[in-house]
Amino acid sequence: MSKRNIPTRRFIKPSFEFLIEKKRDGAEFSQEEIRYIIDSTLDGEMPKHQLAALAMAIYFSGMSAQETADLTEEMMLSGEVIDLSSIAKPKIDKYSTGGVGDKTSLVLVPLAMAAGVVVPMMCGVEHDYIINALDKLACFPGFKGEQSIDQFTAQLSRIGGAIVAQTKDLAPADAKFYALRKETGTIPSLPLITGSVLSKKLAEGSEGLVIDVKWGNGSFIKDLEQAKQLARSMTRVGRSMKRRCVALVTDMNQPLGDTVGTALEVREAIQLLKGEGPEDIKELVLKLGMEIVRLAGVAGSTLSAKQTVQRHLTDGSALQKFKDLVKAQGGDTTMIDHPEKLPQAKHIRKLPAPKRGYVHTINAAMIARGVHLLGAGRDDPHDKIDYSVGVSEIKKVGTQVKQGEPLMMIHYNDEAKLEQALEYFKNAYRLAPKRPTPPPLVVERVA
Amino acid sequence: MSKRNIPTRRFIKPSFEFLIEKKRDGAEFSQEEIRYIIDSTLDGEMPKHQLAALAMAIYFSGMSAQETADLTEEMMLSGEVIDLSSIAKPKIDKYSTGGVGDKTSLVLVPLAMAAGVVVPMMCGVEHDYIINALDKLACFPGFKGEQSIDQFTAQLSRIGGAIVAQTKDLAPADAKFYALRKETGTIPSLPLITGSVLSKKLAEGSEGLVIDVKWGNGSFIKDLEQAKQLARSMTRVGRSMKRRCVALVTDMNQPLGDTVGTALEVREAIQLLKGEGPEDIKELVLKLGMEIVRLAGVAGSTLSAKQTVQRHLTDGSALQKFKDLVKAQGGDTTMIDHPEKLPQAKHIRKLPAPKRGYVHTINAAMIARGVHLLGAGRDDPHDKIDYSVGVSEIKKVGTQVKQGEPLMMIHYNDEAKLEQALEYFKNAYRLAPKRPTPPPLVVERVA
Repeated sequence: MSKRNIPTRRFIKPSFEFLIEKKRDGAEFSQEEIRYIIDSTLDGEMPKHQLAALAMAIYFSGMSAQETADLTEEMMLSGEVIDLSSIAKPKIDKYSTGGVGDKTSLVLVPLAMAAGVVVPMMCGVEHDYIINALDKLACFPGFKGEQSIDQFTAQLSRIGGAIVAQTKDLAPADAKFYALRKETGTIPSLPLITGSVLSKKLAEGSEGLVIDVKWGNGSFIKDLEQAKQLARSMTRVGRSMKRRCVALVTDMNQPLGDTVGTALEVREAIQLLKGEGPEDIKELVLKLGMEIVRLAGVAGSTLSAKQTVQRHLTDGSALQKFKDLVKAQGGDTTMIDHPEKLPQAKHIRKLPAPKRGYVHTINAAMIARGVHLLGAGRDDPHDKIDYSVGVSEIKKVGTQVKQGEPLMMIHYNDEAKLEQALEYFKNAYRLAPKRPTPPPLVVERVA
Repeated sequence: MSKRNIPTRRFIKPSFEFLIEKKRDGAEFSQEEIRYIIDSTLDGEMPKHQLAALAMAIYFSGMSAQETADLTEEMMLSGEVIDLSSIAKPKIDKYSTGGVGDKTSLVLVPLAMAAGVVVPMMCGVEHDYIINALDKLACFPGFKGEQSIDQFTAQLSRIGGAIVAQTKDLAPADAKFYALRKETGTIPSLPLITGSVLSKKLAEGSEGLVIDVKWGNGSFIKDLEQAKQLARSMTRVGRSMKRRCVALVTDMNQPLGDTVGTALEVREAIQLLKGEGPEDIKELVLKLGMEIVRLAGVAGSTLSAKQTVQRHLTDGSALQKFKDLVKAQGGDTTMIDHPEKLPQAKHIRKLPAPKRGYVHTINAAMIARGVHLLGAGRDDPHDKIDYSVGVSEIKKVGTQVKQGEPLMMIHYNDEAKLEQALEYFKNAYRLAPKRPTPPPLVVERVA
């Protein structure tokens, strides 16, 4: 893929010390060197302490666009790369860096399917109490998120979409490297994040990728400038690997939509699939959906893309595809027609505003943490999720409230867990006497 | 020792990830945190890959003067700290970062002894083909460099000086950390070098330390500015640990003196102990000797220090102390009176100047490498040293030579080894038509 791929000379293996010092001193790795590092990571030839030092040197010295592309490609090639060329339709995937209350995948996948776009989506493990799409879909009885690659491609051929768990067969070098990065303070490196995400995403077999890079208190990227840089890094690498790529930098300084939880978010997703639902997430679905249909080539102009998205959300075709998807993965679809049958918590209570004023800021991470404490997440892979708990009717930034009026409704089953969660919910809200200017939802488009 | 030593609060152990991220983000460690890191390094509680990431973070983020002092102190306290308080005389040690042809320790230790200063010198393992003082002294039959701490202190009480191998009982945390740094590209960090050197040197029990920081092509510090910074860092830490400290930044852009080897350097040292020998190293011995007697308080003014040093070099008292030292450590001193009995190589040949001109530069590291190849060093701790080989009559920078005139004389025993070494010797010399300005020997004094 890379221009430097032509073997013009024999590669003499350098010592790992040499490679660490080279990056430490700010030099650029050749493709052969990056291949050697990734091979040595995979087979354990490079000791962990040397890989750790190298990761920290990369954190400080950075990587060029070419190095990042080479890293991504070599990590991708360390495992299976799914071949979807037998499927004639355009294949576009969507990736988000993760946000609180973000149920867009549940809407975008069926929406794209309705528009004739195949979406081969695999979900990775989320971090920082973010609930992923699979944990939400799991509230449909019988739903299965685990598939073999053969099952995955068969479902894509049959119904045009799938939302499954990332298999361990994709980019195993990244899995090893990522585990080390978590323990060595080297997660927040833009080239390493780019390589980690794209090596797996591009192994899923799509021709294009729409990326949602979130910034703010509910994202792992707190800084807008960093989010913009990540968006640029990802689209650049995607392009250099011959994929169509576009990224939106979007706001994650408050939860998206009105709900955070699993069943509560599924219910909101069903609303969105009917063309209803809260304005902010409706706008995000529209913007991301337009990018998908344009990347896929099923809509040419902005106007046509907008009309395509809006039509499929209002004519019931996206909703039907959602049912097809849930059914194809073994889930009971009764609740889609009867959302009132979705798991419901025993108790609902309000979070009262401590004083009158405007919602000035909401710390989305604290909301996520509180919902996690109610039982919506796992502390351990074997923990059971309580699908019924969460929060709804979230008063968003800029809303005026009276003292005692609900800032949100809390759905809970356990008083002790509520007590713990309340601390986070209370502290998440800041009220102020003046109406703040809410931050723009889509900050930048990088293509 | 440190102001922050007063325990005012209970220390809650942070996670290693937290400590790595803290340093990565440029924050300052507390003394408790540094103690915890060193304790965890020593007992292996901190995994190697996390220590490696931390070392690289320190490489990039640096350490404050206080952190460096705390690091030094904690590493020092990880092992034995020799108590020489029963010895009434002033106790001053000398440390050099290591140089090619540097035989000053062999002269300075007896010289200081003659002036009434006790010198408790322990030599560490040298790097980059530098030959240490012990390997040179080993050419006296019977000489022993290994002593227990009890033997060491007894000899200091009896004759006032010793040159022995560093025992593993000093700063064991540093030994572990240093081994890791060698493999992870984190050797050239000023605070880590400072901590590593001073934790061992200050454990040797001296009240003061004269430091020779060498910069140039024959030193591991190639950059003058870095050498100045290291000199400042070391004297600052020494002072904060209540030791008298002075550092000279000196030139190592060509070999010191006229010889490189073991017996050849011992012969030059004997000349110096008689007040003779090449000008450059004579000057360095004078300057460092003056610092020792002033730090010890046996000479007040610069003039009196100079006179003291010169007197002991010319009246035979320093030479006598050299005999005392060699004898005390089991060595045969006959060769000191009869240097012609020192080991001599079978063959001597010249390195001819390839053209006429002035010696423009000499790559000292290449000379060291060549001498090593002749057999003067070890590639393995079990290798035997050939004491007779080396180079002599080195034409120094600025010397005019005719074509074919010797640039130096090569002492060798093995033609095959000579062939290999010659490549380095030839490439070490640059001749130019104009006389260059030789760099100043002592660049800066840091007190």
